[in-house]
Amino acid sequence: MRLQVVSLGELLVEIMREKVDQPLGVAGTFVGPFASGAPAIFIDAVARLGVNCGFIGTVGEDDFGRLIVERLERDGVDTTYIRSLSDYTTGVAFVTYFSDGSRKFIYHLSKAASGKIDKDQVDSDYLSKVKYLHLMGSSLSINEECRKACYEAVRIVKEAGGKISFDPNLRPELLGIEKIREISEPILSSCEVVLPSGEEAKMLAGTKDAEDACQKLLEYGPETVALKRGEKGSWIFTAKDKIEVASFPVKEIDPTGAGDCFDAGFVVGLLREWPLEKVARFANAVGALAVTKKGPMEGAPTLEEVERMVRTRRWSGG
Amino acid sequence: MRLQVVSLGELLVEIMREKVDQPLGVAGTFVGPFASGAPAIFIDAVARLGVNCGFIGTVGEDDFGRLIVERLERDGVDTTYIRSLSDYTTGVAFVTYFSDGSRKFIYHLSKAASGKIDKDQVDSDYLSKVKYLHLMGSSLSINEECRKACYEAVRIVKEAGGKISFDPNLRPELLGIEKIREISEPILSSCEVVLPSGEEAKMLAGTKDAEDACQKLLEYGPETVALKRGEKGSWIFTAKDKIEVASFPVKEIDPTGAGDCFDAGFVVGLLREWPLEKVARFANAVGALAVTKKGPMEGAPTLEEVERMVRTRRWSGG
Repeated sequence: MRLQVVSLGELLVEIMREKVDQPLGVAGTFVGPFASGAPAIFIDAVARLGVNCGFIGTVGEDDFGRLIVERLERDGVDTTYIRSLSDYTTGVAFVTYFSDGSRKFIYHLSKAASGKIDKDQVDSDYLSKVKYLHLMGSSLSINEECRKACYEAVRIVKEAGGKISFDPNLRPELLGIEKIREISEPILSSCEVVLPSGEEAKMLAGTKDAEDACQKLLEYGPETVALKRGEKGSWIFTAKDKIEVASFPVKEIDPTGAGDCFDAGFVVGLLREWPLEKVARFANAVGALAVTKKGPMEGAPTLEEVERMVRTRRWSGG
Repeated sequence: MRLQVVSLGELLVEIMREKVDQPLGVAGTFVGPFASGAPAIFIDAVARLGVNCGFIGTVGEDDFGRLIVERLERDGVDTTYIRSLSDYTTGVAFVTYFSDGSRKFIYHLSKAASGKIDKDQVDSDYLSKVKYLHLMGSSLSINEECRKACYEAVRIVKEAGGKISFDPNLRPELLGIEKIREISEPILSSCEVVLPSGEEAKMLAGTKDAEDACQKLLEYGPETVALKRGEKGSWIFTAKDKIEVASFPVKEIDPTGAGDCFDAGFVVGLLREWPLEKVARFANAVGALAVTKKGPMEGAPTLEEVERMVRTRRWSGG
């Protein structure tokens, strides 16, 4: 089986507060574990869209790790290069949401199995056949070991003629902005497409306006910048064009993973070699469907669901 | 303030399944975080019994860590030597109970803040004034760093004329039995009192009978072996005597922490220089009261509650 898309990075389970406005430091109820990690949500969504894909990452030899690997396998992700370590525990993210829309996290990540991505896992035979390698800024931020694995994967894929997609997915609370820019630069200048949110674009480019930021990001080298605007849809920038694509109206249950699912739709659209407007519309539909269910991976739609939405629903916003 | 008792070891929060028979690897509800860690439960119980005490351990700079430190401070534990690290996350234990009485855990412990106990924290001025240093087998098992801190603390306290109490609190699932015996030996041969369960005594001594095991443990050097028999009370062994002390009948809500609270009662009784039978009766009452509330530290009783139980309740078992 030839893999078309591979992603690499943190695998973790998410343990979330059952209700809003419950601080993490006070006893209360949680629900979980849910398979998570931005690149894992991405690859699961790619698989559900019917594309052959695989993942490189690490879990602990425990029930949380088994949950993640079984989930990815069930959805069709190749897990040959997911390793399981007996002396590390699977990464965990505790998350709580507040009614003002803010979130708060506690992570066991950089010192957990999630951050132990070994050189041996970045296999040149495995990676040199893929058409797209998708990376996330969050994976670059975990630790030095994980960052090096990302850079090495980029080198192999580029050398073999494959392409890179990059979601900056910045966590300025984990690392300073300057450091984030520095570690993102090698990926930005190697990738085919960047998929930031407005805040991420501004932070990376150091501008006050999201559109200016996207123009500036193009100067790093990517063909395309896909600006994710949430319920307002997406704007696609190339050297020649700006394409504004409206979103699909949905009832939001849980926003987690929406951006990662948008990325999946976008990369799948690029693989199909559709015109950019069609790619973006498809990606908007994948992202919209993702927010309709609780849990980071639960909303990832099937190809059929996305096609039905693209075919039948009116667009909103613009 | 002169501290009478100090303990050293893992600080962590416990996240527990809300209902029985919920495996950890399937989405469901949890409750937590609850301040925990066997030596932390012990020291909290000592403080609630009105004895000046302190703790040496490490948390992460996060809401879980703050919860633990605030809880210990509120109950009167001196937290001068609890440090908070910004680049490590507070340890976490996920636990689920099954209806057959078994438990299953997933830990973020040895690579989390819990395991980062530095030489600087084992302060000779602080420790050389204490009457009892209480150690747990679980702390010896975390990692090399933590183990060395335990040994160094024993050396300081012994040299200054203080005494050591030791709860083997073995986790054979974390380390093999041979290794546990090896790392426990230096503490066994230095301590005044050992407080094992029947299973722990048999495992440490390598015998099939708990009473034989306790006799064998005396040969290592301790004056007293206090065998915890749960709802059947406790048996106290010295070179001369075996004292059988009945338990107090209570309605069990959550057994977590009962053994640690028994230890606290026993050490407090020894500090008071009571006869061993009175010490054991007091410790039985502390342990019994501990199981009447949900959460690892929630049941730790006050001195008044224990005295009321000892005074008014009939004993059960024998």
